[in-house]
Amino acid sequence: MSISTTPETTPGPTTPVSSREVFAAHEGGKLSVQSTMALDSKRALSIAYTPGVAQVSRAIAEDPARHATHTWASRLVAVVSDGTSVLGLGDIGAAASLPVMEGKCALFKEFGGLNSIPLVLETTDVEEIIETLVRLRPSFGAINLEDVSAPRCFELEERLIEALDCPVMHDDQHGTAVVVLAALTNAARVVGKELAGLRVVVSGAGAAGIAITDILVNVGIGDVVLVDSQGVIHRDRNDLNPIKARYAAITNRDSVMGGIREALDGADAFIGVSSSQVPAEDLEAMNDGAIIFALSNPDPEVMPEVAARFGQVVATGRSDFPNQINNVLAFPGIFRGALDASARRITPRMKIAAARAIADLVGGDLAADFIVPSPLDPRVAAAVAAAVQEVASGE
Amino acid sequence: MSISTTPETTPGPTTPVSSREVFAAHEGGKLSVQSTMALDSKRALSIAYTPGVAQVSRAIAEDPARHATHTWASRLVAVVSDGTSVLGLGDIGAAASLPVMEGKCALFKEFGGLNSIPLVLETTDVEEIIETLVRLRPSFGAINLEDVSAPRCFELEERLIEALDCPVMHDDQHGTAVVVLAALTNAARVVGKELAGLRVVVSGAGAAGIAITDILVNVGIGDVVLVDSQGVIHRDRNDLNPIKARYAAITNRDSVMGGIREALDGADAFIGVSSSQVPAEDLEAMNDGAIIFALSNPDPEVMPEVAARFGQVVATGRSDFPNQINNVLAFPGIFRGALDASARRITPRMKIAAARAIADLVGGDLAADFIVPSPLDPRVAAAVAAAVQEVASGE
Repeated sequence: MSISTTPETTPGPTTPVSSREVFAAHEGGKLSVQSTMALDSKRALSIAYTPGVAQVSRAIAEDPARHATHTWASRLVAVVSDGTSVLGLGDIGAAASLPVMEGKCALFKEFGGLNSIPLVLETTDVEEIIETLVRLRPSFGAINLEDVSAPRCFELEERLIEALDCPVMHDDQHGTAVVVLAALTNAARVVGKELAGLRVVVSGAGAAGIAITDILVNVGIGDVVLVDSQGVIHRDRNDLNPIKARYAAITNRDSVMGGIREALDGADAFIGVSSSQVPAEDLEAMNDGAIIFALSNPDPEVMPEVAARFGQVVATGRSDFPNQINNVLAFPGIFRGALDASARRITPRMKIAAARAIADLVGGDLAADFIVPSPLDPRVAAAVAAAVQEVASGE
Repeated sequence: MSISTTPETTPGPTTPVSSREVFAAHEGGKLSVQSTMALDSKRALSIAYTPGVAQVSRAIAEDPARHATHTWASRLVAVVSDGTSVLGLGDIGAAASLPVMEGKCALFKEFGGLNSIPLVLETTDVEEIIETLVRLRPSFGAINLEDVSAPRCFELEERLIEALDCPVMHDDQHGTAVVVLAALTNAARVVGKELAGLRVVVSGAGAAGIAITDILVNVGIGDVVLVDSQGVIHRDRNDLNPIKARYAAITNRDSVMGGIREALDGADAFIGVSSSQVPAEDLEAMNDGAIIFALSNPDPEVMPEVAARFGQVVATGRSDFPNQINNVLAFPGIFRGALDASARRITPRMKIAAARAIADLVGGDLAADFIVPSPLDPRVAAAVAAAVQEVASGE
């Protein structure tokens, strides 16, 4: 990508975004740390810093519970990445991933009202990442893992959850899965089918595909078929990594074999998170009232205008088409709810509750081209947080 | 310390600070992370986050220099502590040190205009601390080490400076040393003596004492005597750790032996950073026009009213007496100047320039009870930053 080749335009509400504008907005970074109190008098200094602060530090040393109430850490989300799977750009490294993590932190504040700091790590070794975050434990209250490549991301998340007594969630997995479940719930309503009765094909068995499959199974959908670059995942394949093998055992009820074409034969829903194109003719084999989520960015598995010929409900990951499946609908509220409840973990039930809250917000506006709320709808994070907190408090 | 025993008072500009007020101000922590741009439209989201941010990440992957210009990291100070020597409280641990680090971050913004995040580490192992910060390298642009116990702090700082290509400074050492040098410079003017000709006794050979000795030697003061809990440090002592041995070799010109009493005999300046009391009668042996800095907090080595009987200029570390030696006069400007100059290291010459800038700001107001500017003087950090940047740019 060359920066200078994009035509410059005068910025305005309806003007396309130019590269110049994007780079200008990122100059010097996108985050600012402020003091919560003015430090403009000797008195203020003696409260916020010495000698006053010594009382607070001593109190925490005597009663560690005060760390949660009298520092920012217990409600601070560390947005952590090793830069191995950044957006559609792949393994571009920690330094280059930082603008994404800064943006994520900005979204945490804007939508979840949570403080958040980006921590990018110049190691891709799972042991070293865990070790680093364990050492930093008193510095934060939750970890949003971001843009970590599969299959390392599965082991990293699982082991961090064991190692740390605070919420840990890999958003590329579960944020996506929650919003997909919300969208699928409402798409099923639109096409007049039962969610649990859907036959769903998930194309892509990376971070998002595995987590989507997991939440669909957890919510009671009995017929999910997972497809990776080698074709349908079934019990007899001997080329599966441990995580795919785990899902081979609990999906593909009818032991479908073959490729995406065979998988889509008689399917009710297609969920693409694979970056690979799906031929239009393969979609033809889907059932009536098909649901097609082509979520890869920037190039959907099938363009919406093509998908619309075969599907009754179509969604993408892009903001310039209807039904954008955007993680920002989920992660701010999930973390906010978990932290509001002082939850130590983000459980499957909390994620399902988040999905239901997102789906229910659509309410009477439900239509084939409106199955999820706008990412800018300020009610979303609050509703998700409340739903997550309620489940968390009961666990 | 019991929180409830401090009498409560109605807060007001002249009221003493109550514990209740201190704890209320620290509730939920003292820092807030904000986005530098509003995220209130799809357009703004597409600039700050996807898809726009991908252009910036890709540009950094192609040209790593853009990490410095298009993320916040290159001007972000990580305030790092392991909680082993927190204020006067000692080794209270990382979690309990966090309120101090948050306060420090607030001061960095207020006085230096720099973003700063607290990172507290649940390890006291020098290797592990270095390893952790090396892994986090792309996340920040400088490290302010804070409240790390001696003698580990010397090895940690030295090795971090070698390991990282960014400014690293242990403020308990050099921040204190810079302000002491500024104060001593002006105290010498008040008493009409040459700075380089002073015979100086430094009581305390911990983080501050060693760094003060170092900067006094660097600035050309030929007769410095360092005293630790076992007495005067001289070449013939065989109980010295490596760092003390290093300074034994370059101080104590006249091979003084004995204790603080022997050291003070004929001394022009006493600088106490030891937390141990100095008997009034020992101060009697100092030269006329004595300079007495009793910097331990909250209990000075000698109370100012007693010190005033023997010294012409008296300073403490406390805000309720004249001549407060406060690190906030130094660290915001030092880091600001170093980052403004894109300096890779904070050198001795930069520290000396910072001290001179602080001293010179006092100007015509110089008096026995006004040898350093107020910590609230907004000119200080700017003057220090300019002086440091000028030296850095020439190195």
